Amino acid sequence: MMNTPLIMTQMIERAEKYYPKKKVISRTEGGIRQFTYREIAERTRRLASSLEKLGMKKGDRIGTLAWNHHRHLEAYFAIPCSGAVLHTINMRLSPQHVSYIVNHSEDKLLLIDADVVPLIESIHKEIGHVEGYIIMTDSEELPETTLSPVYHYEKLIAEGNPSHPFIQDLDENAPAGMCYTSATTGNPKGVVYSHRGIVLHSLALGLADNMGVKERDIAMPVVPMFHVNAWGFPFAAVWFGSDLVLPGPYFTPKILAELIQSEKITITAGVPTIWLGLLKELDENEYDTSSLRAVICGGSAAPKSMIKAYEQKHNIPFIHAYGMTETSPIVFASTMKSYHDDLDEEEKYELKAKQGMTVPGIEIKVVGREGEVVNDGKEMGELLIRGPWIADEYYRDDRTEGAFKDGWLYTGDVVTVDEDGFVKIVDRTKDLIKSGGEWISSVDLENALMAHEAIFEAAVVAIPHERWQERPVACVVLKDLYKGKVSKEEIIEFLQPQFAKWWLPDDVLFLDEIPKTGVGKFLKMALREQIKDKYAKQ
Amino acid sequence: MMNTPLIMTQMIERAEKYYPKKKVISRTEGGIRQFTYREIAERTRRLASSLEKLGMKKGDRIGTLAWNHHRHLEAYFAIPCSGAVLHTINMRLSPQHVSYIVNHSEDKLLLIDADVVPLIESIHKEIGHVEGYIIMTDSEELPETTLSPVYHYEKLIAEGNPSHPFIQDLDENAPAGMCYTSATTGNPKGVVYSHRGIVLHSLALGLADNMGVKERDIAMPVVPMFHVNAWGFPFAAVWFGSDLVLPGPYFTPKILAELIQSEKITITAGVPTIWLGLLKELDENEYDTSSLRAVICGGSAAPKSMIKAYEQKHNIPFIHAYGMTETSPIVFASTMKSYHDDLDEEEKYELKAKQGMTVPGIEIKVVGREGEVVNDGKEMGELLIRGPWIADEYYRDDRTEGAFKDGWLYTGDVVTVDEDGFVKIVDRTKDLIKSGGEWISSVDLENALMAHEAIFEAAVVAIPHERWQERPVACVVLKDLYKGKVSKEEIIEFLQPQFAKWWLPDDVLFLDEIPKTGVGKFLKMALREQIKDKYAKQ
Repeated sequence: MMNTPLIMTQMIERAEKYYPKKKVISRTEGGIRQFTYREIAERTRRLASSLEKLGMKKGDRIGTLAWNHHRHLEAYFAIPCSGAVLHTINMRLSPQHVSYIVNHSEDKLLLIDADVVPLIESIHKEIGHVEGYIIMTDSEELPETTLSPVYHYEKLIAEGNPSHPFIQDLDENAPAGMCYTSATTGNPKGVVYSHRGIVLHSLALGLADNMGVKERDIAMPVVPMFHVNAWGFPFAAVWFGSDLVLPGPYFTPKILAELIQSEKITITAGVPTIWLGLLKELDENEYDTSSLRAVICGGSAAPKSMIKAYEQKHNIPFIHAYGMTETSPIVFASTMKSYHDDLDEEEKYELKAKQGMTVPGIEIKVVGREGEVVNDGKEMGELLIRGPWIADEYYRDDRTEGAFKDGWLYTGDVVTVDEDGFVKIVDRTKDLIKSGGEWISSVDLENALMAHEAIFEAAVVAIPHERWQERPVACVVLKDLYKGKVSKEEIIEFLQPQFAKWWLPDDVLFLDEIPKTGVGKFLKMALREQIKDKYAKQ
Repeated sequence: MMNTPLIMTQMIERAEKYYPKKKVISRTEGGIRQFTYREIAERTRRLASSLEKLGMKKGDRIGTLAWNHHRHLEAYFAIPCSGAVLHTINMRLSPQHVSYIVNHSEDKLLLIDADVVPLIESIHKEIGHVEGYIIMTDSEELPETTLSPVYHYEKLIAEGNPSHPFIQDLDENAPAGMCYTSATTGNPKGVVYSHRGIVLHSLALGLADNMGVKERDIAMPVVPMFHVNAWGFPFAAVWFGSDLVLPGPYFTPKILAELIQSEKITITAGVPTIWLGLLKELDENEYDTSSLRAVICGGSAAPKSMIKAYEQKHNIPFIHAYGMTETSPIVFASTMKSYHDDLDEEEKYELKAKQGMTVPGIEIKVVGREGEVVNDGKEMGELLIRGPWIADEYYRDDRTEGAFKDGWLYTGDVVTVDEDGFVKIVDRTKDLIKSGGEWISSVDLENALMAHEAIFEAAVVAIPHERWQERPVACVVLKDLYKGKVSKEEIIEFLQPQFAKWWLPDDVLFLDEIPKTGVGKFLKMALREQIKDKYAKQ
C-alpha cells in the first residue's frame, strides 16, 4: 500500500473541493454571519500565509484563546496545515494557569478574541517570549491595549495569499494540536495531538454506529473549541462536508434553542450543565427541535432523568458519550444495539445512562484494586484505555509517569462493564466515598437525586468520619419553584427505596449553586473545601 | 499519541467481545447454517492454531479457493491475525493462471472448497512447493483426491485451540492479504494489502456518508470473497458487528431474492450482471425486499436504466461505486449530497449513474492526453489515484512501472469530473473508440442501449476502419421476449436523438451472450476477437 500519511490538509482541501457550497454559520460579538466552505478555505489559506509571514514555522506552538466562531475554525486548519501546532487555551482558567500554559508550551503567537485581551494584558509581562498577538474581532479597529506587537486578524486575512499551498511533506505523527487539562492539584497538564490521531478520531466520528457525522448534518458543537478541539466535531464536520454552526461567545440556553430552530441543527454536542440549561428552556418555551437527530453529551455523567426528559418529553435522541483531554476525546458512545430494541423503556434508559460502548479502534481494560482484570458488570475497577488517538504522555511533565503505564492510560475513573460491553462510570477514584471499607459511588447518588422533580442539580461528596472513615453528603440546588419548599428528610426518603441504607447521605445541604470548572464540570474539590468547616465543627 | 498499530486482530476481537450474539448466516453445499460471532471467533482461533501447527509462519502466503461462506470468513481472520497473508484466489481463472498465481505467490498451504479439488488436481504437479491442502466441506469424509497431503477443515477446527491468542506485535504495514487481478495480456498481477490499508478501508466503509456499515445491518456480500476481499465487506461487517449473510456457491437470482426476503438483508454488494439478473427475478416474481437500504454496485458501470428500475420500480436504494483490485477497492461512491434533493428525477439519475464522489481519505487527479490536469466536467482524462489503501506496486512484477508513477496509480480508466466532484468513467483507455481523431465512449453507448426495453445486455467495441481509424459496433443480447423481433435499424433509431451522428454504431450484432470475465465484467478483448473476422471480410 502507498505510504500516504494521515494528515489534516486533506480535510480542509476536501471541503474546498467537494463541499464549496456548504456553510459555516458563525455567531460572533457582531451577530450571526454565514460563509461557504469555499470562503472559509480561502480565508484559511490567507491566514496560513500571513502566519508564516509573521514567522510561524513547522513545529511552532500557536496559541488560541477564542470562542466557537469562524475565525477560530480558520485557525483550526491554518495552523496544523502549515505544520505548526494548534494550541487551544481555556480562557476560563485562572491568569496564573494561562500564564503557566503559554510559558510551558512556548507559544510563539497568540490568536485571541477581543474580550480576552484584558486577561492576556494581566499576564503580559510573564509571557515575554510571545512574538505577537493577533486579535480576532468584527470591529475594524483594534481595541486599545498594552499588548505589543498586536495584529488585526482581518487585516492579516486581507493581506494573505488566497491560494497559499498547505504543507505537503509531513510525517503523520507530527504534532497538530495541543490542549492543557486541569489537574486536581498543581499546574495544568499538556496533551499533544498528532495529525494521525486527529484523522483517525475524525473517521471514528463519521462511523454510522458512532456519531455518524455526514454531509447532511448541520452540526453545532456547543462544547468550547478550547476544550479538546470541541471533541473533534469541527474536524469531522469540515472533512465530511456538514454545515457547521458555531454558537460564539456568551450564549444562553435561549440562544441555543433559537439556533437549533432557525438553523435546523441535526447534531449538537456539549456537557450536561449545558443540556440541563437547555432542557429548562425547552420546558418553558416552545421551539421546533424536530431537526435534531442527536444531542451528544459528555464531559461528565448525564443524569438518567435528563436523558429521559430529552427523549420522552421532547422527542430528541440523546447520546451519552465519554472521553478525556487525553483521549482526543471519543472513547465510549451509548449507541444502542439492534437487539436492545426488545428491552423495556426502563432497561433502555439504564443503558443510555451508561457512558456506552468502546468505539472501534479503541481498547479498554478494567482493573480492580489488586490489578486484576474485572469484566463482569458488577465489580468496579479503574478504566485503562489504549488506541491510536490516546495520548502517551503529558507534554514535558513528570506526571506522565503516574498516568501512562505499560502502554495504557490510567484514567482514574472507576467503572463497571456489563455483558454488552456498556461501561458505566461509577466515580473518579478520588471521588469515590470509602465508607466502612466499602465503596459508595457519588455519581449513582447524584443521578438518583437529579431525578427528583424539585432538584435542579446535585453533587455528592465525602466528608471525613471518625468511625466510617468517610460518609456521603448531598449538596443540592433546588429549581426556583421549589426553593424553600423541600426538606432534607423528604429527599432522604426519596432516595431510600433505591439504595442500601449505608449509601444514604448523612446530610443534605441546599446551595444556590454547585461550583464548576471552566468547562462546566462539578468542582468537587472546591465543594468539599466549601463545606468542610461545617462538618469539622460538628 | 500512542503508536498503537492499525492491525486486523482488533476486528475479530471486537466481534467476539461486543457482538457475541450477532450472526453469520452461511449457505454451503449442505444448506443454510447459522453461527454467532462467539462461535465464529472461537472457530477462527481454532483454525489459526491448527494452521500454525501445520507450519504457517508470519509472512507466509496462504491461498484460498473458496466461495462466500463461514469457513472462508474464518480464514479471512485466522490467517492475517496470525501474521500470515490471506491470499484469495479466483477459481474461475484458467488452470494455467491459477498455477501461475500459486507459484508466483509461493503459497504454502491452500484452503479449497471440495468442488475446486479437480481444478487443483489438474495443476498439482506444477505447484509442488505447496505443503498441504485443506479441504472445506460439510461432508464428514474427504473427497477422493490425488492431492497430498490433504486435511479436513473441520478436523483442524476440532483439534484447534479455542482460546489460541492472535498475534500481538505486528507492524501495521505488514502484509495481511493478497489478490491477483487479470491483466489484458500476460499473467495476472498480484496486489498486497497491508493491515493498515484494510483497517483504514474498513473505517471508510463504516462512514455514514459512504456505505455506513453498522451493527444494525444485515450485510450480504454477493461479490465473491476471492475478488478484492469481497470489497472489504466481510472485514467491516465483523468489525462493526453487522449480521453477515454469505450466499455460498452457485447461487441464482432466485436464491439471492429469497435470501434478501428471508434474512431481511439491509445492504448487499455485487457487479452489474448480478443485479441485472436479480432485477429480472424481481420483475417476474413477488418478493419482500423492503429491508434493503442499499444495493451497492461496482466492478463495472451500472446502466442508468437498471439503477432507475431498482429505485423507481422496486423502491430499492441503489449506490453506484467504483474501485479496483489495486484500490482495496473503494474509491468512489455515488451517495447524493443534501442539495441534490432539489434536482429533478432525471438529473438525479444522471448523477447516480456516475461512479460517484471520492471517499474521504482518497485523492484523485485526472490528466489529459498531454498530462495536463483536467477538472471541468467536460474534458476526459485518465484517472490517477492515491491514498493509504491504494497499492504502490504489483507484487514482484515488472508491470509495476507502467501503473505506479510519481506516487499515483494510473488506472487506465478515462473519466470526467463534474463540478460536484462526481466522477464518471467514460471508458478504459484501451476501450475508447478513436474515430477520426475524436474519442467515442463505448460505455456511454452501452448505457443508452441498455435503457432500451428489448435489450438485456449490450457491449460496444471498436472495429478497425480504413478512413476513420476505428468505428463502434454494438453487440446486444435481447431479452427472451424480444428475440428476433427487433431490427438493427430500430436500435440505431433509438440511439439517434441521444448522440452526435458520428457516435452512432456502424453495426448492431445480436448475440446470445456477451463474453465475461470470471467476476462478471464484459470481456471486450474476447468480444473484439469474436467479431473481428466478420468485419475483416467486409
